[in-house]
Amino acid sequence: MRSHYCGQVNESLIGKEVSVAGWVHRRRDHGGVIFVDLRDREGLLQIVFDPDAKDVFADAERLRGEFCIRIKGLVRARPGGTANANLASGQVELLAQELEILSRSETPPFHHDEPVNEELRLKYRYLDLRRDVMQKRIRLRHQVTRAMRDYLDSNGFIDIETPMLTKATPEGARDYLVPSRTHPGQFFALPQSPQLFKQLLMMAGYDRYYQIVRCFRDEDLRAERQPEFTQLDIETSFLSEEQIMQLMEALIRHLFKDVLGDDLPNPFPRMTYAEAMRRYASDKPDLRIPLELVDVADLVKGCDFKVFSGPAANPDGRVAALRVPEGGTKLSRKEIDDYTTFVGRYGAKGLAYVKVNEKAKGRDGLQSPILKFLSDDAINGILSRTGAQDGDLIFFGADTAKVVNDSIGALRIKVGHDLKLTKTGWHPLWVVDFPMFEWDPEAKRWAALHHPFTAPRIEDAAALRADPKNALSKGYDMVLNGSEIGGGSVRIHRTEMQSTVFDLLGISAEEAQIKFGFLLEALKFGTPPHGGIAFGLDRIVMFMAGTDSIRDVIAFPKTQTAADLMTSAPTGVSEEQLKELHIRVKLPVKVEG
Amino acid sequence: MRSHYCGQVNESLIGKEVSVAGWVHRRRDHGGVIFVDLRDREGLLQIVFDPDAKDVFADAERLRGEFCIRIKGLVRARPGGTANANLASGQVELLAQELEILSRSETPPFHHDEPVNEELRLKYRYLDLRRDVMQKRIRLRHQVTRAMRDYLDSNGFIDIETPMLTKATPEGARDYLVPSRTHPGQFFALPQSPQLFKQLLMMAGYDRYYQIVRCFRDEDLRAERQPEFTQLDIETSFLSEEQIMQLMEALIRHLFKDVLGDDLPNPFPRMTYAEAMRRYASDKPDLRIPLELVDVADLVKGCDFKVFSGPAANPDGRVAALRVPEGGTKLSRKEIDDYTTFVGRYGAKGLAYVKVNEKAKGRDGLQSPILKFLSDDAINGILSRTGAQDGDLIFFGADTAKVVNDSIGALRIKVGHDLKLTKTGWHPLWVVDFPMFEWDPEAKRWAALHHPFTAPRIEDAAALRADPKNALSKGYDMVLNGSEIGGGSVRIHRTEMQSTVFDLLGISAEEAQIKFGFLLEALKFGTPPHGGIAFGLDRIVMFMAGTDSIRDVIAFPKTQTAADLMTSAPTGVSEEQLKELHIRVKLPVKVEG
Repeated sequence: MRSHYCGQVNESLIGKEVSVAGWVHRRRDHGGVIFVDLRDREGLLQIVFDPDAKDVFADAERLRGEFCIRIKGLVRARPGGTANANLASGQVELLAQELEILSRSETPPFHHDEPVNEELRLKYRYLDLRRDVMQKRIRLRHQVTRAMRDYLDSNGFIDIETPMLTKATPEGARDYLVPSRTHPGQFFALPQSPQLFKQLLMMAGYDRYYQIVRCFRDEDLRAERQPEFTQLDIETSFLSEEQIMQLMEALIRHLFKDVLGDDLPNPFPRMTYAEAMRRYASDKPDLRIPLELVDVADLVKGCDFKVFSGPAANPDGRVAALRVPEGGTKLSRKEIDDYTTFVGRYGAKGLAYVKVNEKAKGRDGLQSPILKFLSDDAINGILSRTGAQDGDLIFFGADTAKVVNDSIGALRIKVGHDLKLTKTGWHPLWVVDFPMFEWDPEAKRWAALHHPFTAPRIEDAAALRADPKNALSKGYDMVLNGSEIGGGSVRIHRTEMQSTVFDLLGISAEEAQIKFGFLLEALKFGTPPHGGIAFGLDRIVMFMAGTDSIRDVIAFPKTQTAADLMTSAPTGVSEEQLKELHIRVKLPVKVEG
Repeated sequence: MRSHYCGQVNESLIGKEVSVAGWVHRRRDHGGVIFVDLRDREGLLQIVFDPDAKDVFADAERLRGEFCIRIKGLVRARPGGTANANLASGQVELLAQELEILSRSETPPFHHDEPVNEELRLKYRYLDLRRDVMQKRIRLRHQVTRAMRDYLDSNGFIDIETPMLTKATPEGARDYLVPSRTHPGQFFALPQSPQLFKQLLMMAGYDRYYQIVRCFRDEDLRAERQPEFTQLDIETSFLSEEQIMQLMEALIRHLFKDVLGDDLPNPFPRMTYAEAMRRYASDKPDLRIPLELVDVADLVKGCDFKVFSGPAANPDGRVAALRVPEGGTKLSRKEIDDYTTFVGRYGAKGLAYVKVNEKAKGRDGLQSPILKFLSDDAINGILSRTGAQDGDLIFFGADTAKVVNDSIGALRIKVGHDLKLTKTGWHPLWVVDFPMFEWDPEAKRWAALHHPFTAPRIEDAAALRADPKNALSKGYDMVLNGSEIGGGSVRIHRTEMQSTVFDLLGISAEEAQIKFGFLLEALKFGTPPHGGIAFGLDRIVMFMAGTDSIRDVIAFPKTQTAADLMTSAPTGVSEEQLKELHIRVKLPVKVEG
């Protein structure tokens, strides 16, 4: 039906007959002539319908936006002065000789160039996906996966598929369940990740595995989450942490170079978890923002200001200062009040600050409601440690370490954006030396910071059991511009260590046997040292596409209530189907109405 | 930990120090020296432990089969006469200088070379996957998908992911359902195929789509089915049937050439559905078997043998003859009796036959219980039409066309295999010109032979409605050595035709709106002509791997009751989980015990 894509028709074809097919992007009638911009996935081409060609012209008069048509015609140069330098086909136009209307279109609910509300975009996703920006994003996603595959294939990785109907997994989030028809009362779970299967593939000797794989988490959805998402899943054998990290950052460098032409740093900077928390109050620091926290608990430990001295004396507390250069002159009282409200959302009970007007004047050159509580030593210490200059403003966070990190960490980002301090470009880093465990005060037991299969840095199971609090893991996260884009670890490869970790996590031997018996069994048969990583594909593509929603880089995403507005899924099903699956619906009791 | 894979160590490294890591494949103690064949994914390497190196030798004495170890040593030529030409590393051995036991192994439940029962293989799949033959199959699968991607990428196809949590689909098989937590009482279905999504992508203008995608069917499992399977899913716009078929057979030719070095015919032979049924009694004829059916109903129409004359007079009946060259001499009476039992399984009530001893003698040269019922004209007609020669045997099928096709079609294959008539090599073909519909006598309505979105060859909806029985579709199946490896069609791209087909299939306008409203809506906005295909990846890899079970080319397959013997999935889940999903289990009532 077509000899060329619209975007391929250019000067080299002048005088030639070509056939094109696509959609009526725009129609203009001008001086008795009909002009149609015809669109296909490769671009636009101007079609001219001359009234002298009566039959074709008569058909062309029926054309409306989004009609799908086929045109045969003669390529000619556009008349002087009408060339369009923005189009690949902008030097030429096609004089129509034949027109076939392949299918008509009603007036679409939105035009492809218009911004539209997201609900409408999702309901008519097939129209939304026609828009140039969406076409580019979806094609970018393919370029990304292709570049990943090229790199991994040429580095000896084997693409292996793992099951989707699996056993319920322990990754923390809720599983999607699938009732079994052939095993009444039993359920499969959709995988939160292929974690155990990829470890088993290492035990099976495949040495280097990858898969671009759909994963599922039935969580309450935040903006950047989807119930089903895609990860690049990787596992290797006989490599050290260091070697895995080098290989993986080389993959990501290849990706950005190949797809965007961008150079990422070589090597990526590394930062320990402890340093990341201390300087950025985050385990995924956004290095684009040049603001940093400094700890001042030691300076205010004995002061009269309980808000500071309390947390300063508490082993789980933190008192930290955040210097905002020129914040004293640039931030209004109103803005500071707004930031106080902002940190309140993260549990902070207030937001102390000091304005530095004239440092040379000492206490008199500062401005703050809390000055009176602080000794000269404390004040001088804070000024010197933050490196404050005249015109700066210093914010303080003082509370449990968690509240300070959550609130001042978020404030750091917000102030950085508000004052336009954000650097451009890509700022990747590795965060390493994570704690093995964190204490879960509600459940009153240790929880895994990565997952229960992550190896501790310490080799001896008894030593780990003796001091779990201070144990570091062989985990590593790849962070880009403040987002975790990949997380992985070296895994436990010995039964004794795996059993010890399960035990520390409060998983009884019996429970471990039921849930992970096959893993413990497999560990008995010569398990190689192994480790890997999983990258969030949707998020990586989102970054590379320069958008801020993963829904923009997923062809058919779900809404925040995990619904598909286009097909209206999920739906009710027949009693007959449920009966075959040995389940029945039990709706929640309505409290009102 | 390693400088080389075992299989990479060869003469070029003699005199060099290398490190290798892998599994103890075999240990032999000979003349006070310990020999270990070390295995990794690239092959075997002979390690020599010399008793003079006391520490290393002492450690080596502890080695058992499947221990995972690391060795550093010196590559040297094997002593004269001990080279092994079957191994890439067979000219050399590694004199061990350092040995590290990375992890021990209990005695495995089966040895990697032994054939084992499948239940044990699936339970210890990670050990089964260590076997050389399984390593080759899993890696072959990756080579296959890579070759597919290479071809499609270089032909402008875009890899686009479609959802796994979808609306219940109409593909005929049972859906796997997934209860929604956020939409009480509602369910997602796992996709039987991405059919409608790929059509919507064509409506969205992506022009050429592919995806290697997991699909799900909750069916009672036959040997070659799995509850989850993988297909190469493809859709194109603005191409004719002919163009799609050309492109797709070029893909398959590329695949076989690239991966196996095998040349497939160019072009593939084509056969109409009618011809395939007439000559091979199958819509997926195995062209390796040179036996063919011929119709003889016209010759026996009025004869005294009711078994023949009844079906011959019935418009839904068939009387067909299958000539078996040399069958008269090669098949014993016992074997013919066994074939009678065999066709009985397909509903045939008997198996008439004629032995051709000496054709020149006419009726007297033949041998058969049914001769007396047949006229000389009928006999001569049958002999001439089948081309029978002295020593041949002719089988007859006479019943409804369905019973004849099922039974004599199966007999054709069986006799072909039994008499070793099967040709070697690859015998692909296209089957085309399928009927649009087949009558479902139980449901008393038309059923789609492909699926409800397949376009009829006829363009006019009213004409289709007037004569659905004789309508042909634009469907095409790719058949290889008697198996359907791909099936596709040009799709309906106009609302009126789609509504007409739904109507003919007994889907009311209301039901169509509920199930396919989004498709009917999408068809209104300038849908391009489009069509595609889906290839069964598991089956293609199975053929290429030369095995006869798709479980051999799936890393972690399910059993025939859809269970995972390794992880013990499916399992029971907690009441809490079910409550969150608004369902409860309702077990079938036990009739006994």
